[in-house]
Amino acid sequence: MKKSVFMEEMDAFTYREKLAKDAVVFIPVGALEQHGSHMAMCVDAALTKAMAGATAEALTADTDGALEGIVCSAINFGYRSQQRSGGGFHLSGTTSLSGTTIISLARDICYSLIEDGARKIVFMNGHYENYQFIFEGAELALEKASAEGIRDVKIQLLSYWDFVDDATIQELYPDGFTGWDLEHAGVMETSLMLLFYPDLVDMDRIDPALYTGLPAELPNYDVLPIVADYTPPSGCLSHPGASTREKGIILRDVAVANMVIAIEDEFSGAGDFHED
Amino acid sequence: MKKSVFMEEMDAFTYREKLAKDAVVFIPVGALEQHGSHMAMCVDAALTKAMAGATAEALTADTDGALEGIVCSAINFGYRSQQRSGGGFHLSGTTSLSGTTIISLARDICYSLIEDGARKIVFMNGHYENYQFIFEGAELALEKASAEGIRDVKIQLLSYWDFVDDATIQELYPDGFTGWDLEHAGVMETSLMLLFYPDLVDMDRIDPALYTGLPAELPNYDVLPIVADYTPPSGCLSHPGASTREKGIILRDVAVANMVIAIEDEFSGAGDFHED
Amino acid sequence: MKKSVFMEEMDAFTYREKLAKDAVVFIPVGALEQHGSHMAMCVDAALTKAMAGATAEALTADTDGALEGIVCSAINFGYRSQQRSGGGFHLSGTTSLSGTTIISLARDICYSLIEDGARKIVFMNGHYENYQFIFEGAELALEKASAEGIRDVKIQLLSYWDFVDDATIQELYPDGFTGWDLEHAGVMETSLMLLFYPDLVDMDRIDPALYTGLPAELPNYDVLPIVADYTPPSGCLSHPGASTREKGIILRDVAVANMVIAIEDEFSGAGDFHED
Amino acid sequence: MKKSVFMEEMDAFTYREKLAKDAVVFIPVGALEQHGSHMAMCVDAALTKAMAGATAEALTADTDGALEGIVCSAINFGYRSQQRSGGGFHLSGTTSLSGTTIISLARDICYSLIEDGARKIVFMNGHYENYQFIFEGAELALEKASAEGIRDVKIQLLSYWDFVDDATIQELYPDGFTGWDLEHAGVMETSLMLLFYPDLVDMDRIDPALYTGLPAELPNYDVLPIVADYTPPSGCLSHPGASTREKGIILRDVAVANMVIAIEDEFSGAGDFHED
Amino acid sequence: MKKSVFMEEMDAFTYREKLAKDAVVFIPVGALEQHGSHMAMCVDAALTKAMAGATAEALTADTDGALEGIVCSAINFGYRSQQRSGGGFHLSGTTSLSGTTIISLARDICYSLIEDGARKIVFMNGHYENYQFIFEGAELALEKASAEGIRDVKIQLLSYWDFVDDATIQELYPDGFTGWDLEHAGVMETSLMLLFYPDLVDMDRIDPALYTGLPAELPNYDVLPIVADYTPPSGCLSHPGASTREKGIILRDVAVANMVIAIEDEFSGAGDFHED
Amino acid sequence: MKKSVFMEEMDAFTYREKLAKDAVVFIPVGALEQHGSHMAMCVDAALTKAMAGATAEALTADTDGALEGIVCSAINFGYRSQQRSGGGFHLSGTTSLSGTTIISLARDICYSLIEDGARKIVFMNGHYENYQFIFEGAELALEKASAEGIRDVKIQLLSYWDFVDDATIQELYPDGFTGWDLEHAGVMETSLMLLFYPDLVDMDRIDPALYTGLPAELPNYDVLPIVADYTPPSGCLSHPGASTREKGIILRDVAVANMVIAIEDEFSGAGDFHED
Repeated sequence: MKKSVFMEEMDAFTYREKLAKDAVVFIPVGALEQHGSHMAMCVDAALTKAMAGATAEALTADTDGALEGIVCSAINFGYRSQQRSGGGFHLSGTTSLSGTTIISLARDICYSLIEDGARKIVFMNGHYENYQFIFEGAELALEKASAEGIRDVKIQLLSYWDFVDDATIQELYPDGFTGWDLEHAGVMETSLMLLFYPDLVDMDRIDPALYTGLPAELPNYDVLPIVADYTPPSGCLSHPGASTREKGIILRDVAVANMVIAIEDEFSGAGDFHED
Repeated sequence: MKKSVFMEEMDAFTYREKLAKDAVVFIPVGALEQHGSHMAMCVDAALTKAMAGATAEALTADTDGALEGIVCSAINFGYRSQQRSGGGFHLSGTTSLSGTTIISLARDICYSLIEDGARKIVFMNGHYENYQFIFEGAELALEKASAEGIRDVKIQLLSYWDFVDDATIQELYPDGFTGWDLEHAGVMETSLMLLFYPDLVDMDRIDPALYTGLPAELPNYDVLPIVADYTPPSGCLSHPGASTREKGIILRDVAVANMVIAIEDEFSGAGDFHED
Repeated sequence: MKKSVFMEEMDAFTYREKLAKDAVVFIPVGALEQHGSHMAMCVDAALTKAMAGATAEALTADTDGALEGIVCSAINFGYRSQQRSGGGFHLSGTTSLSGTTIISLARDICYSLIEDGARKIVFMNGHYENYQFIFEGAELALEKASAEGIRDVKIQLLSYWDFVDDATIQELYPDGFTGWDLEHAGVMETSLMLLFYPDLVDMDRIDPALYTGLPAELPNYDVLPIVADYTPPSGCLSHPGASTREKGIILRDVAVANMVIAIEDEFSGAGDFHED
Repeated sequence: MKKSVFMEEMDAFTYREKLAKDAVVFIPVGALEQHGSHMAMCVDAALTKAMAGATAEALTADTDGALEGIVCSAINFGYRSQQRSGGGFHLSGTTSLSGTTIISLARDICYSLIEDGARKIVFMNGHYENYQFIFEGAELALEKASAEGIRDVKIQLLSYWDFVDDATIQELYPDGFTGWDLEHAGVMETSLMLLFYPDLVDMDRIDPALYTGLPAELPNYDVLPIVADYTPPSGCLSHPGASTREKGIILRDVAVANMVIAIEDEFSGAGDFHED
Repeated sequence: MKKSVFMEEMDAFTYREKLAKDAVVFIPVGALEQHGSHMAMCVDAALTKAMAGATAEALTADTDGALEGIVCSAINFGYRSQQRSGGGFHLSGTTSLSGTTIISLARDICYSLIEDGARKIVFMNGHYENYQFIFEGAELALEKASAEGIRDVKIQLLSYWDFVDDATIQELYPDGFTGWDLEHAGVMETSLMLLFYPDLVDMDRIDPALYTGLPAELPNYDVLPIVADYTPPSGCLSHPGASTREKGIILRDVAVANMVIAIEDEFSGAGDFHED
Repeated sequence: MKKSVFMEEMDAFTYREKLAKDAVVFIPVGALEQHGSHMAMCVDAALTKAMAGATAEALTADTDGALEGIVCSAINFGYRSQQRSGGGFHLSGTTSLSGTTIISLARDICYSLIEDGARKIVFMNGHYENYQFIFEGAELALEKASAEGIRDVKIQLLSYWDFVDDATIQELYPDGFTGWDLEHAGVMETSLMLLFYPDLVDMDRIDPALYTGLPAELPNYDVLPIVADYTPPSGCLSHPGASTREKGIILRDVAVANMVIAIEDEFSGAGDFHED
């Protein structure tokens, strides 16, 4: 078997050895969701898994092996896509977990890892709508661990795009940046897909007739049932046209580097986030 | 009995008459949460109730009575306070509902109103952390109504501060605005409390020794269990010192006016949000 | 800020000081429910909050400050109104929580207070139908606390009307008393509202055409779906005509005094209920 | 196979024939709970099953077969015994369902019968603490049926002791009656056990040393965790000494006759409860 | 009271004495389910209760009283009957618990026994479809016990038919055995009913016109909604014609003897299953 | 983008076109679970996904495109591994969902696909322990769909190994076959992994010291907490030594061919399973 940071590609004995060294375990949380006609529907799950893999590797490298990284299987499904960040859960192809399901799922997986011996856990989110439910699941896992007398677990929760810094944003979005919520199927996600999964992107399928009204102008509130007219016809919320593999590299490198810092801040004895 | 938009101050027969005119029913969702030493713990619930009352009245006035407003009892308790928007749920005085509880609560109350005959419902949120759970509860209420064959309900979900426009923000925060998440117990909430509940604010209790490190610098991620050191000693995330009743009036007037527009966009036949 | 026993009117630092003295924390549980045409719909929540406030104050006075009282925000919503005690949940204006929601709500709030440090908790019920669900929620909070190693919590559960003694009942109901279940919107609730919230009562709205068939004669069983004909047209189960503010004072004074005794029996070291 | 009203003793084909005649289906709900040293622990389940059987037979007889009765398997387990009506759930031998479990159980069984074709359902309760949870389960079953388009179901909920009239109470309790809640393992239950299951009663095991402090004097509130001292040493709440098989016959006959009237009131076309 | 292994026929004081000797407590889990026209619907619950009783008695005899057996009330209702093992839950007379209900029920009852002091618990299953849900309920009870610091509980889960050995199968099914799943209402269950409850079997009601197509040929998958045509008209999955009381005796004796061995393997200090 | 049957590799517009042709949608359900030292932990999820892909393609080919196949993202996590079929959930690396979580997950995903327009759904299971929970989730999805008025959905539930016929078993297991439950990490799974994911198998890591006691002899019951000694040291339940890629081809071909027949039986108008 090849060497891998992914639990899915690791046998149990190897996993146990790594975990015995107090490895950081990443749980990527994505979604199966429409991303226009130019990208496959795996984007949120696949990118988060790839970013978690890159971060796990970088973490080990940066700490000279002091902090090993392991990436758990991705949660492939996410919370109901909301119109202001994913086009809406009414769109066919967008698969939705209810709130209590994703809470339970996050809790169970996190608690399983704790039972395995993991004490340093990072939930990496890649679907905007998931965050609050993962937070709740993580807290419930901690409460269950605490009831079992396990009180030395630390969980970090983050969304990878929050680690792209302002300088990079200004460089990659010279015409202005409309916010991560509107980046659904836009330049960030498309560029990262061109980097990690080029076979699952087809820039030629950016049909101008469909890709209009972008970036989407959406109300500063939600409506239920969803008003279908508010979502642009492509299902994308901003235009992916300017995406390139090179931008994908920049985004990955910046985000991974900053995530490594944040993870070390929390999980190495050396300090905490206030010191940078 | 005095005339009132609040269900709590209305007898059932009056309520039924109003509802028969297809009134818009507001559900204020707040929290019972520490807000430093200078304000009472009711802030999120009390302000949201007050803002909903003001909006209900303004809606009726603006539509010449075509759209009446009714305000349901407030949900007094909110989701676990998070460190980046409320200082954290570890703080004594901060009362926390778990995710599934607030989802169920929002669903049951919303569905009860639908059974009463309400077809135009506005969830007004006043505690940052609640939003996703209210959204889920509203969707579940709609699903239950739909199973009962009731398919003409429309629900609008909003947080009142999102209706303070950029011009007002620039005016009220001349030194820069750090975001609504950090406004926990800051100028917005304090100014509105000075307007609506002056007896529950005591600007003299803004103790400099306690009110340091503001605005708080918080990581761009969450950690569980909460790292108490990340929260400033007062529990406030930005400094309330510049708060005044006058700012409260401005904030109320701007937010109410913009909410009325948004509500009319959705609930009067005249148009939708795209047309403004 | 004024001095207050209500958490909603207290800042977090003051709350922590009080709690450090092992204060008794009251959780008022009410409902938002039709109460005829002569009273506002807040009765169950508002009266319970007021009674809890009066009891908290009396407790401190009676013990010379040895036992301080704090009143948490009220649970504004209650379990489905039943026909034999509230007229039925089919009536518009009556808002219903499902059983699991009120259980979870009672559990979460109670557990939050325990986490804050509260060890002496009184659930004061003011909506007949809530009792069993609050009991379950309290037990679940205790189980959660116990799993966390917190085993010194004591919870007292009561309904305030159970503390009106027989002598008072005979005095206030000279023509016979039909039971607390039928007291929905009758003399007890109306008299207390005339005392605590006179603006929310309008005795002139006791329309004889509507207020007939009282006290209601109801079967000694329940039927689902509710048979609307069994409920009197006003929604009241007994006639409020004889209500006065003076009776409100008597009811409050008797109930508060007896509750104070019961609370001291349980929470002061001096004795227990068997000794009186 | 012998002829029987009990589903447990009936083959499915016979059941279907009966149900096709729009039979009334009874669901007995009991408990497995300590009942002192003089009775077996099945009392609540066994008596309710027996009373339901007697009522089902009497119903058929009284209506000349127009209304047939079927008795479903008993729910053998009940809600946590409370100190004021069952001695408390801390007592060994008392088996407790949590609130949500008994709600779900009542819902599922009731809905299964509806799916079978039952449209006339009687929940007969025999464990004081169960009532509110059964009520909720019944309502949830109706909601599920309604969502499936089944809207002609009627459910009656009752506790059999509520059908013992005042004259009988005065006759059987010449020294005064302390209420059904305190009748736990007292004269009513013991007399009925002597009638229906004499092998499961042993009047010689009424040990005076154990059966003291009866009827129990209990507070007018609950305490959690349970204060064991409040429960009499036998676990009974009133004294069973005066129990006889003859009293059992009287109790059965009166309660059954009155239940038959109530059931006919609701389920035969002839009238409703107001007319008697 | 007669001496009995059944909790239902035992008073609480006797139960406590037995439990104090570290008795093995059996929880029989059955169903209320159609079993053709020749048997009553109680089969799964009634047989499992009888087998548990026989096993409890044999256990005490075999260990000379070292291991006493107690049989808890049966869970009378089971998981949705599946077409391949029970004919399907669409059949009238078959009563279905949803998955979460049976999980909760198993958890609560098991945990109640643990609270009583039981440390040796055997779940005896008699309805094929229940097994996985009981397993989950047992695990949840253990987790709750563990959170309370109770960590010396052991639970054994078994289905009684798995203890009929191959030699017996060959003897009783000379024409070949089609598997326990197809034994629904076949020779095993009918023979045991003829032994334990002869009044609830009527071999004359094996109508050839109805009892055709047996043993049923069912697909190696499930379909939902159930395809009614796949179930034979009688609802039985194999033919009960060759059933006799004598076969019932053999089946009982073999299964009980083997269960006693398995229970001693796990619960007596003498050894474990590997040693036989 | 390449042509693919996998939703994860398909854009939403292509998906909608396929679904408009009433495609069969497969939901693979696996687990993340230890599989000895010679295989990666993804086995159950990865193989099921691969088998679903092969079946989807074969279905389209066999029906000349009349029935298209789409494969949803895999459920990567499964129910608690049981000792008799997976070695036990106490083993590190084995990740466990609780029963209610996997029920909810199956329900939500299935219902999402139904909302997308899918009417022909196949749950393909690849982790022995999942089956009953998936069944429940599928039924709940159908109930929800039915409440929404959608009543033309058909769901088929199967485990892929059940489609390996007896002739193949005899051919591949010349020394006798011990049942699919014991095939955990044995010849079937290892051979299929050698076919589909050769990089994730390492036959050299079959360490004789570890791979002893195979096939495992396990009791015919379960014990909780798990008795670790009952599981062989490798975590495998049968020996994978005889595995080859060629056997993988045979297994895949036979199972896929038989699954295609079963799927056509249910989903093409041509007939049903009885006719073969």
